[in-house]
Amino acid sequence: MQIPFTKMHGLGNNYVYIDLFDYAIDEKLYHDLAIQISDVYTGIGSDGMILIHPTTDADVGMRIFNKDGSEGKSCGNGLRCTAKYAYENGIVTNKKFHIQTKANIVEAEVSVDNNKVNQVTIDMGEPILARNEIPMMGNNDVKVVNEPFVVAGETQYITAVSMGNPHGVFFVDDIEKAPLETLGPTIEKDMRFPESINVEFIEVVSPTELNFRVWERGSGITQACGTGACAAVVAATLNEKVTKSHPIVVHLAGGDLNIEWKEDNHVWMTGPAEVIATGLFYYKEE
Amino acid sequence: MQIPFTKMHGLGNNYVYIDLFDYAIDEKLYHDLAIQISDVYTGIGSDGMILIHPTTDADVGMRIFNKDGSEGKSCGNGLRCTAKYAYENGIVTNKKFHIQTKANIVEAEVSVDNNKVNQVTIDMGEPILARNEIPMMGNNDVKVVNEPFVVAGETQYITAVSMGNPHGVFFVDDIEKAPLETLGPTIEKDMRFPESINVEFIEVVSPTELNFRVWERGSGITQACGTGACAAVVAATLNEKVTKSHPIVVHLAGGDLNIEWKEDNHVWMTGPAEVIATGLFYYKEE
Repeated sequence: MQIPFTKMHGLGNNYVYIDLFDYAIDEKLYHDLAIQISDVYTGIGSDGMILIHPTTDADVGMRIFNKDGSEGKSCGNGLRCTAKYAYENGIVTNKKFHIQTKANIVEAEVSVDNNKVNQVTIDMGEPILARNEIPMMGNNDVKVVNEPFVVAGETQYITAVSMGNPHGVFFVDDIEKAPLETLGPTIEKDMRFPESINVEFIEVVSPTELNFRVWERGSGITQACGTGACAAVVAATLNEKVTKSHPIVVHLAGGDLNIEWKEDNHVWMTGPAEVIATGLFYYKEE
Repeated sequence: MQIPFTKMHGLGNNYVYIDLFDYAIDEKLYHDLAIQISDVYTGIGSDGMILIHPTTDADVGMRIFNKDGSEGKSCGNGLRCTAKYAYENGIVTNKKFHIQTKANIVEAEVSVDNNKVNQVTIDMGEPILARNEIPMMGNNDVKVVNEPFVVAGETQYITAVSMGNPHGVFFVDDIEKAPLETLGPTIEKDMRFPESINVEFIEVVSPTELNFRVWERGSGITQACGTGACAAVVAATLNEKVTKSHPIVVHLAGGDLNIEWKEDNHVWMTGPAEVIATGLFYYKEE
């Protein structure tokens, strides 16, 4: 069976996209197809598979499957690529539209140059600051802002933010010296986080610019994390390190994102989405 | 620039193939294209790129570029895929033909079922047993067959064979317990091998069957190594562990190869080649 695909990436976070408007696939095959297609040795090679599908609840739907075939809920970099694909392939005709994921429905806006989408803005929703909703152990009346946090015998200072998934943000003087490999895995699995946590180290470059490195829960060091960049800007605002309600440039290993925590309490993320290849995948039915 | 490609693999050893019969690419771009296309984050993702090109010296030529853009000489798994591609795309019409690589010109034969190539046989040439040509230090009058070899304080027994690249073969009772991670890197860089060496552990299952694991020079543990499987059969024959001039099944991590060291001293390798995907790669010129 030859399945039409498009491989895309946002800041190096790469998925194989399959357009179900165009081509129907038996739902029973999704799990196995995601495993086959993501394998770099015998498949295309990717972080997973995203199905772009019709839905009655929004302009376009997306379902995300990890490398191991399990289904995820959402992905900031995947949302930008889905928006680019939907606009460039005529699934939507307006520049503002809505995308449904397993987590929620989000608003997207594409910036178009010469019929090509070069940047996509996504409404990443409202940050969650209540300690028990992050979740993090401790006194629920106090938000986790610059709170002393002893780890490996030393005191660090944590600001904790959920963007639907939990993030622990630590400010450092020099991003190159951030203890990503050492403290990342320790903090991720610290018992103070019942659902473990994504760990971000942030260097404040200026009131409108942050350097960012991430240790992702379950994945380790990655090139980019959209929700992490949003959490970083929220944390930097709470600590009065950046200009409020103003777009902040976040420099990730994979490239830049532009993040704005607006007056209406929503966090908006703007960044690139790129087509890598299009073609036919030779799927082997077992 | 959109470049037509085919991704293929042989036992998990995967390359992106570009057909220069069909599509011309400026030679100045080969290095950068190989790096871009092999990157799993922002490219297709592969062990490298293989260019299939016209040549006056054989029926078809292939040039192999590693992930880092450097040019390699040859690759057994790549030769099988090139042969399949050449036959299925009408570059050759006979089932027996010749492929030119940077190393030499080799004979290939395809086995065809329903117009599809399912197995490919490649003449891998004559093994080199002279110690100084492998190369390995020591008395050049004595071939390296079951020679005591002290490493990490213990005596192992080595048989050394070059198939154009150097291999050190060690027989073990149980392939699952082969000390691949521990002795592999130590032997690879042992000073007795001036050009370092590929390290193979072999379990003799029967006089016609071997289990095989490899630590590849410069790459570590890999799923398959065509020249290593040939070296293993030569070593097993020299040690009278397998039937002479008879096809031997070699079980690699990525699948099976059929190897025969024939009376004319040439080693023939037969194995699968698979198409993964075809399409257009969006190359970004710098």
